[in-house]
Amino acid sequence: MKEISGGVCAPKGFKAGGIRCGIKASATKRDLAIICSEKPCSAAGVFTVNKARSACVTVSKEHIKDGALQAVIINSGNANACTGEAGVAAAKKMASLGAELLKIDPHQVAVASTGVIGVPLPIEKIEQGLKEQGLPLTDNEEGFLQALEAIMTTDTTKKYAAFELEIDGKKVRLGGMTKGSGMIHPNLATMLCFITTDAAVSPQALDTCLRRAAQRSFNRLSVDGDTSTNDMAIVMANGEAGNSTITEGSGGYEAFAQALETLCIRLAREIARDGEGATKLITVTVSGARDEKTAEILAKSVVSSSLVKAACFGADANWGRILCAMGYSGADFDPEKVDVSFVSVLEGEEVMVCKDGSALEFSEDDARRILGCKELEIRIKAGTGQGNAEAWGCDLTYDYVKINGDYRS
Amino acid sequence: MKEISGGVCAPKGFKAGGIRCGIKASATKRDLAIICSEKPCSAAGVFTVNKARSACVTVSKEHIKDGALQAVIINSGNANACTGEAGVAAAKKMASLGAELLKIDPHQVAVASTGVIGVPLPIEKIEQGLKEQGLPLTDNEEGFLQALEAIMTTDTTKKYAAFELEIDGKKVRLGGMTKGSGMIHPNLATMLCFITTDAAVSPQALDTCLRRAAQRSFNRLSVDGDTSTNDMAIVMANGEAGNSTITEGSGGYEAFAQALETLCIRLAREIARDGEGATKLITVTVSGARDEKTAEILAKSVVSSSLVKAACFGADANWGRILCAMGYSGADFDPEKVDVSFVSVLEGEEVMVCKDGSALEFSEDDARRILGCKELEIRIKAGTGQGNAEAWGCDLTYDYVKINGDYRS
Repeated sequence: MKEISGGVCAPKGFKAGGIRCGIKASATKRDLAIICSEKPCSAAGVFTVNKARSACVTVSKEHIKDGALQAVIINSGNANACTGEAGVAAAKKMASLGAELLKIDPHQVAVASTGVIGVPLPIEKIEQGLKEQGLPLTDNEEGFLQALEAIMTTDTTKKYAAFELEIDGKKVRLGGMTKGSGMIHPNLATMLCFITTDAAVSPQALDTCLRRAAQRSFNRLSVDGDTSTNDMAIVMANGEAGNSTITEGSGGYEAFAQALETLCIRLAREIARDGEGATKLITVTVSGARDEKTAEILAKSVVSSSLVKAACFGADANWGRILCAMGYSGADFDPEKVDVSFVSVLEGEEVMVCKDGSALEFSEDDARRILGCKELEIRIKAGTGQGNAEAWGCDLTYDYVKINGDYRS
Repeated sequence: MKEISGGVCAPKGFKAGGIRCGIKASATKRDLAIICSEKPCSAAGVFTVNKARSACVTVSKEHIKDGALQAVIINSGNANACTGEAGVAAAKKMASLGAELLKIDPHQVAVASTGVIGVPLPIEKIEQGLKEQGLPLTDNEEGFLQALEAIMTTDTTKKYAAFELEIDGKKVRLGGMTKGSGMIHPNLATMLCFITTDAAVSPQALDTCLRRAAQRSFNRLSVDGDTSTNDMAIVMANGEAGNSTITEGSGGYEAFAQALETLCIRLAREIARDGEGATKLITVTVSGARDEKTAEILAKSVVSSSLVKAACFGADANWGRILCAMGYSGADFDPEKVDVSFVSVLEGEEVMVCKDGSALEFSEDDARRILGCKELEIRIKAGTGQGNAEAWGCDLTYDYVKINGDYRS
């Protein structure tokens, strides 16, 4: 498998674009994106479990029910959440407007929204924007970067990736783009993720692969402990690569599942790195837990702890907070068998601070230097089994508070 | 019931004091406290559920098992957590040192610690301190304030209260003191709470009353989502008031239970108000939920949300985050029946921002003024039942990050 350029336009037969409709207050920023395939696609999606879910989640779940989609239309600047019946009508209208221009059935179009909660979606601005500007779609980097720009809110980086691998003697490509930087917490996050592939995959197999990949990527991600009203990750597979259709258990299944997981982990890490106000990416790796689920619970609890996150910001090797966060996670482990190290990922330096649950003598200077790096691993050995898991997050900084103290202004 | 002065020394027959042993780096701050009764007491305690619990929790649970105590000895500056077998030995030694001076059995002494995790408890400093300074205990404000000073860490205020009521024709007093400002989260928090009463109460009744009071006070309190390794709340009842012993279902039971609950809620609110870096006390009241448990889950989820807390700091009426936090709480409710208001508690102003789950027109100026107050209520009507609950917390500020970015230094 190799990395390639082109994001969601890397797979054959996909186009994307973005325009400005004036939903965002900014006079220059794009706020409406479309990603579409020339042909109908198998499709699968995972959605927020928040009970106060956005109308876009309600409508997209309905449209994806039959395992088929051909396009996704996304707006930023407004979440269309807590907007009642009018919100659902607006989300349906948004799908119809996209479908009309693409000359496809509205049920072939998923919708996604991100932005402020509780304000009616100005669907008339979207209608006007599409009427005046049409849908300038391209199958190259230009269109895809416009689409990406149009889904960003407090994001400060563009998050995308694409990979190519061979399945069944054919070159198959997967591309993805994502947004999200606050209100990020397992399960899912205020994150939107759109993945395209030219592999031929049955809807059932696509669904299974996406759920597995999401469980090991987006569901192990925390920026601030808040699970959003709008989260979704959607994958569309149009079969243009010409491989025999992948089904559960078929030859290419495992390779495709792995590739999708790799792509989702890459995108999840990019979200963590760009967490609101973050100065560093934190990866918590837990090995030797009773099983994978236990390792996951422990890793997520540590990466979600405000005290651990603040200590990472301050480069303070306060490892007691790590054991404390493991202790209240609810997972079964033996605190007296736990080893903890800090590792600077890019520099490869490691300092072990806790062995068998108790303090080790260590150099505070080394620890401070390692904790000061841009990409930090908290390496935990649980010492009781074979279960491993990683979780991703970022530090808690003054800027997080600043960004979220006055988000609407 | 009326409020009285004197804290834990208000009930008859209790003494307290505090000395400086040099556990804290500070050259002037007290760090060892004792509270004791002249006579043996009925006793009950609730303790952290953190799996990585402090040695003091292990030892105190053991000592309180028979429902009897006569004293508590507490140090600050060191949590005696993640300290292995040596930590347990140190905690036992601490109880013995107190018992020796008081001439009572070590099993009559509970121990508590608060401070940095993972550093061996310097028990020799405690031994030396007690040897040189003895136990200067008084039954008045002086001793109790010294004890209170000795249990504080990042606390900026002294938190205590006392009440008097009549039970069985006798005047009965309850007094309490507490500490805690970070690593505060249901269930319990890095909080220590010591309550004395001169009521005669059976150990079983005391236990039931304390559990009920803790559930409605400390377990509805969140500063930062981290449940500490060291939390405990202990109550000692010495019977000096001369009432007939209160048992479950006896005449004075309900009055005593109510008084204990009132005291615990008062102390919990003081902890929230003094949350690390906090500029305001936030009370979330949920009414009309399916039942009390549901109301509690909803209230706790809202008061724990980093995004809600940051919005309160910034006086930003971003109520969508409140519905979002309710939505991911796991509780059963109907988002389309929810009303939300902000209330400035001291000024009594209210602004309703959400009705039936959708936006209301409201004055941003009013909202900003109300959210800017020192004591804020987020008033939620769930509209589906009779369950009510309150939860307490504080805003998330730059100073929280600052305090916790470099706690050990």
